[in-house]
Amino acid sequence: MLSEATFKGRLGRALGEMERLGLDCLLVFSRSNQLYLTGSNAGACTVVAKGGEVVQIVYLLEAERARLEMRLGEVFVVSGYEVEGQEGVFVGELHEAVRRVVEGLVERGAKVGLEAAVSHATYSKLAEALRGYSLVSADVVSKLRRVKGSEEVELIEGAVRVAEEALRRGLELCEEGVRECEVAAEVEREMRKRGCGVAFETIVASGPRSALPHGYSSLRELERGDLVVLDLGARWQHYCSDTTRTVVVGQPSREQRELLESVLEAQRSAIDAIEPGVKASEVDAVARRVLRGRGLARHFIHSLGHGVGLLVHEAPTLSPKSKDVLEPGMVFTVEPGVYIKGLGGVRIEDMVLVTERGAKLLTALEPIP
Amino acid sequence: MLSEATFKGRLGRALGEMERLGLDCLLVFSRSNQLYLTGSNAGACTVVAKGGEVVQIVYLLEAERARLEMRLGEVFVVSGYEVEGQEGVFVGELHEAVRRVVEGLVERGAKVGLEAAVSHATYSKLAEALRGYSLVSADVVSKLRRVKGSEEVELIEGAVRVAEEALRRGLELCEEGVRECEVAAEVEREMRKRGCGVAFETIVASGPRSALPHGYSSLRELERGDLVVLDLGARWQHYCSDTTRTVVVGQPSREQRELLESVLEAQRSAIDAIEPGVKASEVDAVARRVLRGRGLARHFIHSLGHGVGLLVHEAPTLSPKSKDVLEPGMVFTVEPGVYIKGLGGVRIEDMVLVTERGAKLLTALEPIP
Repeated sequence: MLSEATFKGRLGRALGEMERLGLDCLLVFSRSNQLYLTGSNAGACTVVAKGGEVVQIVYLLEAERARLEMRLGEVFVVSGYEVEGQEGVFVGELHEAVRRVVEGLVERGAKVGLEAAVSHATYSKLAEALRGYSLVSADVVSKLRRVKGSEEVELIEGAVRVAEEALRRGLELCEEGVRECEVAAEVEREMRKRGCGVAFETIVASGPRSALPHGYSSLRELERGDLVVLDLGARWQHYCSDTTRTVVVGQPSREQRELLESVLEAQRSAIDAIEPGVKASEVDAVARRVLRGRGLARHFIHSLGHGVGLLVHEAPTLSPKSKDVLEPGMVFTVEPGVYIKGLGGVRIEDMVLVTERGAKLLTALEPIP
Repeated sequence: MLSEATFKGRLGRALGEMERLGLDCLLVFSRSNQLYLTGSNAGACTVVAKGGEVVQIVYLLEAERARLEMRLGEVFVVSGYEVEGQEGVFVGELHEAVRRVVEGLVERGAKVGLEAAVSHATYSKLAEALRGYSLVSADVVSKLRRVKGSEEVELIEGAVRVAEEALRRGLELCEEGVRECEVAAEVEREMRKRGCGVAFETIVASGPRSALPHGYSSLRELERGDLVVLDLGARWQHYCSDTTRTVVVGQPSREQRELLESVLEAQRSAIDAIEPGVKASEVDAVARRVLRGRGLARHFIHSLGHGVGLLVHEAPTLSPKSKDVLEPGMVFTVEPGVYIKGLGGVRIEDMVLVTERGAKLLTALEPIP
C-alpha cells in the first residue's frame, strides 16, 4: 500500500506543474490519473485547485467506494436523478457538478486546465458550463507518472512476480492438442487466485496465428512444431506488468531457433544500451540494427516498448519517432518481435527499470524457455 | 459467425442514416463501432463514404489481423515511422492518414461526420487536418446498435449460457474460508477455457463489501452469514453478457431473506412491465415503486439496467431520466439492488430481450440460489 507521503508528494508535484503552467484549477477525467492523485478510481472527475484542495466528483453508486479508497481530498456526490432519502447529493449532469465544484474553489476568470484525452462531447459541454473561465488543455498528471517512485516499483515488481509464475505454468501447458484458450484460462486463473487482476486479455497465439502481434487466444489446438507466443500481465494493487515468451511445441527447427536467438540478441543489445540520458528512439534503433543484420528488420512491425504503471501502456514510448529521453525510475517493456506470414512469430518481452547505472531487468524467467 | 447479409445490412442502414443527416463521409473511431461495421476491431479509424466505400485505417502491426477479420471494406495501413522493406504503408500520423483516405473518397467541401466520443485531442488534430471540409458531430453507428438482429441475439445467448455455467460453479464455491479472488479465478477460468473472453472484471463482494455495487474481488475470506454478490459476464464472438446473483454463506437470516425477496419482486415486476412502446424510465420506476413499498428505495442507488451487445454497457439505459423507448430486439439488463452500509448488499441481474409480446428472459438460472 502506498504511503501518505507518496500521495502528498504527488499532489505537491501536480501543484508545482500547475503553477508553472499558470493554472488555477485542474480537471482530471482519466481514471488512472484520478487514482494516481487520490488513491481512488471511483471518480468521474477529480478537481484540483491551486490552494491544494482536491475534490473527487463521484456518482452516487460509487460514493462509498470512493470514501473507502481515497487517501487525499474530499468526495462530492452527483446523481443524474433524485434518489429519495439520499441527502447531500448534487442532482444534475456531470458537467453541472464540475461547474459547481469549480465555482466553490476558484474565482470566475480563473484558468482551468483540462486533459486532452477527455472526449470531445465532454469537452464541449464543459466549455459551455465553464463560460467565464479560461479553459486550456493541460496534461499535468500523466507527465508525473513517467517516473516511478520506489513504492511504485515494489508494486510493479509484485505484479511481475505473479505474472512470471503464471507464465511458467502456461509454458508447461503448451503441448500438442491443448487449446490456446485453455492455456489462457489457466494462466489468468494463476494470477486471479493470488488476488491480482488481469492487466490485459492474455495472448496465446500459436502456429500461423503467432504471426499476429495481437493474436488473442482462440479455440485452436496447438500442433507439434508450432511457435506459441504467450503474452500476459498481472495487475497488483493497481500496478501492471507485461511479459512475453515464445515457445515451440516439441523440438524447435533450426529456423525457429535462429529466429528466437535473433530476437533475443536484439532485446539484450537494446537493454544494454539503456541508461539515463539516452534517447528512447536510440534504444529502439539498437534492436532494429541487430534484426537488420539478420535480414529480419522488415518483420519487426511495431515499437520496441512502452512504459508500464497504472496502465499497461503509458509513457515513455520506445520507437523510432519517440521524443522521450530515459530517466532513472522509468519502467518500460523491451519487446522486439518478428512476424512472418505463414511461418509464425517470435516475441520476447521483459520489463526493465532505469537506474543511475543502466537497466535493471525486472523479470527472472529465462528468456527462451 | 455473422453472415455477409448482416454486414451488408448494417452498411446499408449506416448509409441511410448518413443520407438523412446529409453526410458525405463518416469517421468511426470507436473500436466497437468499427467492429460492428466491418467485422474487425483492429482499426484505428474506419472511413465510410456515401457511395458505400469502407476503408479501415490500421497500424502496421494490426494490418494482417484486419485483413483476416474484415468482412467488408478495404485496409489502409499506416505507420508512424518507416519500416524498411515494408511497401504500401502510409508513413505519418493517424490524422494525416485520415485526411489522405478522405481526400481519396470525397471532394473538398464535403460534410464529414465524426463521433462525439472521440478524444478532444484527436478532434482538434482532425479539425486542422480536414480544413476545407465541414466537420460535424454524428453518432451514426451507435444508434444502429440499439436494436439487435437475430444473429446477434444468438451470440448474446451463447455468452449468457457460458456465464451461467460459470456462475453456477461460482455459487458452489461460496463457502466459509474461501477468498473472493479464488471464486473470481474459478468463474473466469470456466469462461475462458470455453473460448470466451471475460466481459468485465468479475465482482465478488462479500460481507460488508457487498454494499459496494462495484466491489471487485479482494483477498477477503468469506464468513458464515455473509451476503455475497457475484456479478460476471462472458464475451462470445465479441458479444457480451452480464448476470448477477446474491447468495448467503450458510443459512440466510430473516432480514437477508426479506432483502433477497424484495429485490426479486422489484426485478420481476419491472420485467413484467416491459413491452414495445413502453418508456425505459417507466420500467425503472416500477422497480423503484416496489422497493419504496418495502422501505428500501433509498438503498437503490443506481439505474435499473443498461443495454448489452458488443459492449457490456451500451444503449438503451433504464433510469429515471432515460429518454429511451423500448423496441423489439433491444437487449438489456434488469438489475435492481439495495446496498446497506455495514449490513451488505443484494443485487439480482438478468438479461432480457424485448419481443413483440413483452420481455424474454435470457437467463435460465434460478434468481435466488
